[in-house]
Amino acid sequence: MPPGVAHGAELADVGAGRIADMDAAGVSLAVLSVGGPGADLLPPSAGVALARDANNRLADLVKDRSDRFAGFAHLPMTAPEAAADELERCVRELEFVGAMVNGHTDGLFLDDPRFGPILARAEALDVPIYLHPSIAPKAVRDAYFGGLPGQTGFLLAGPGFGWHAETAIHVLRLILSGALDRHPGLKLIVGHMGETLPTWLTRFDDVLSGAATHLERRVSQTLLDQVSITTSGWFDTPAFLAALAAFGADRILFSVDYPFSDMKRGVDWLATLPLGPADLAKIAHGNAARLLRI
Amino acid sequence: MPPGVAHGAELADVGAGRIADMDAAGVSLAVLSVGGPGADLLPPSAGVALARDANNRLADLVKDRSDRFAGFAHLPMTAPEAAADELERCVRELEFVGAMVNGHTDGLFLDDPRFGPILARAEALDVPIYLHPSIAPKAVRDAYFGGLPGQTGFLLAGPGFGWHAETAIHVLRLILSGALDRHPGLKLIVGHMGETLPTWLTRFDDVLSGAATHLERRVSQTLLDQVSITTSGWFDTPAFLAALAAFGADRILFSVDYPFSDMKRGVDWLATLPLGPADLAKIAHGNAARLLRI
Repeated sequence: MPPGVAHGAELADVGAGRIADMDAAGVSLAVLSVGGPGADLLPPSAGVALARDANNRLADLVKDRSDRFAGFAHLPMTAPEAAADELERCVRELEFVGAMVNGHTDGLFLDDPRFGPILARAEALDVPIYLHPSIAPKAVRDAYFGGLPGQTGFLLAGPGFGWHAETAIHVLRLILSGALDRHPGLKLIVGHMGETLPTWLTRFDDVLSGAATHLERRVSQTLLDQVSITTSGWFDTPAFLAALAAFGADRILFSVDYPFSDMKRGVDWLATLPLGPADLAKIAHGNAARLLRI
Repeated sequence: MPPGVAHGAELADVGAGRIADMDAAGVSLAVLSVGGPGADLLPPSAGVALARDANNRLADLVKDRSDRFAGFAHLPMTAPEAAADELERCVRELEFVGAMVNGHTDGLFLDDPRFGPILARAEALDVPIYLHPSIAPKAVRDAYFGGLPGQTGFLLAGPGFGWHAETAIHVLRLILSGALDRHPGLKLIVGHMGETLPTWLTRFDDVLSGAATHLERRVSQTLLDQVSITTSGWFDTPAFLAALAAFGADRILFSVDYPFSDMKRGVDWLATLPLGPADLAKIAHGNAARLLRI
């Protein structure tokens, strides 16, 4: 079953039920966003209207409980200049703390020059872009994920593997294209324990940095300078150990991916990690407070 | 420059020069294999002839220095029954210790029923199949890796990311298709610190195992039962920490990926790892000796 269908009731409840779940788990603040693709699937004018409406509705929800909720903007990616303007409106007028971008738009990743205005505006506003996975292009689904029993191919293309590999590729394209060098103040966030990136730093420098003579920094350095990672949906201690060793305690943000993952399970898992109180405090809330200014 | 071109001299020297490099690094034994695709790119009859010739030549090299070399079979994957027979010939007559398979064949992975005879024969002979990355299908290269500067897209599709994601998908297809349940004695080896798999065990069980009701085991259990990983080309301590925590010291084999990676660098890195002497001995040689019976 697609995740959105399985969690319809929890997704729809952005009020008392959600806050009760947060209270039960000990979560003080949740950043809300439109879940999954939306305006990015629509032609420009319809996308702009949908995103504006979605953001206004989210702002109303957040305003009612600004002690417990913050918001990420939903952007009309098929109209990049308008998306940049909508991001600015969301940050300046609605007090949102960043934007969530759902992977590729019409098969193009954020390194495509048409999206430059969005990167520039996020940098100028000093708010992060959260790169969320999206549905893989059909060509990739056909090449890699066909012919498996039941729902397993569908899941393998998505949250069972494909989503996460694609999001890592998205980050690497932003680095290798030079986009992050052109926007050195841009902050990215990726979830799912860093979408495999923490285990690759040596390999990236061995294989990619030598050929990337157009870049100002080694690939690993750009990752550490501009990318933070979250634990969303990935309560896995071996993966956390690699993330901590590679990215360090200043670049990891606790996150659940509610309602697709269970809030209490995430918090309970966080408490089991081999962290002293200073690093635990950073990961539990300090890094998010600094990066999102909440 | 493609790696094979950059390392032509080292690749060609399967004698005194290679043994001198092994001596200088402290490597006692190397498993040799045909590097990269070969017979798997040819139509059946030509592939069978090429593989047979390559394996005979490799056997001559190994026989001369059986104190320092062992061999993996090169298989004519486009002729699966003949490939199974060639594997048996290599193991019984040439004393090879397993086979190396270079990813997909004509876009098909080893879960395709046509390759069943190869899996069954490896299982019957009790020799492992080493799944090596190969060139990604063109559809994937076009969707994910186009439009980047210089050689960076080519490298990102290959040893900079794509190879490794594809090999993880290969293993997962073998699990989700039920092929590893049908061949529970089959042993797989994947290199590059497990092709990201060590950081996924919790996620696989969360996302995939529930939908895979046709399988006899959880995905993580099948990985631990039938897959060993090597350090080849991945001298990265954060990645190793995740691999050790997830797969354990009994399933990690030291390997260099010579000449694409440097032998002395690998050995020096191995010595820096936080391992006691018992686990270090397993990873340095004990696990390979047991799995390959060398």
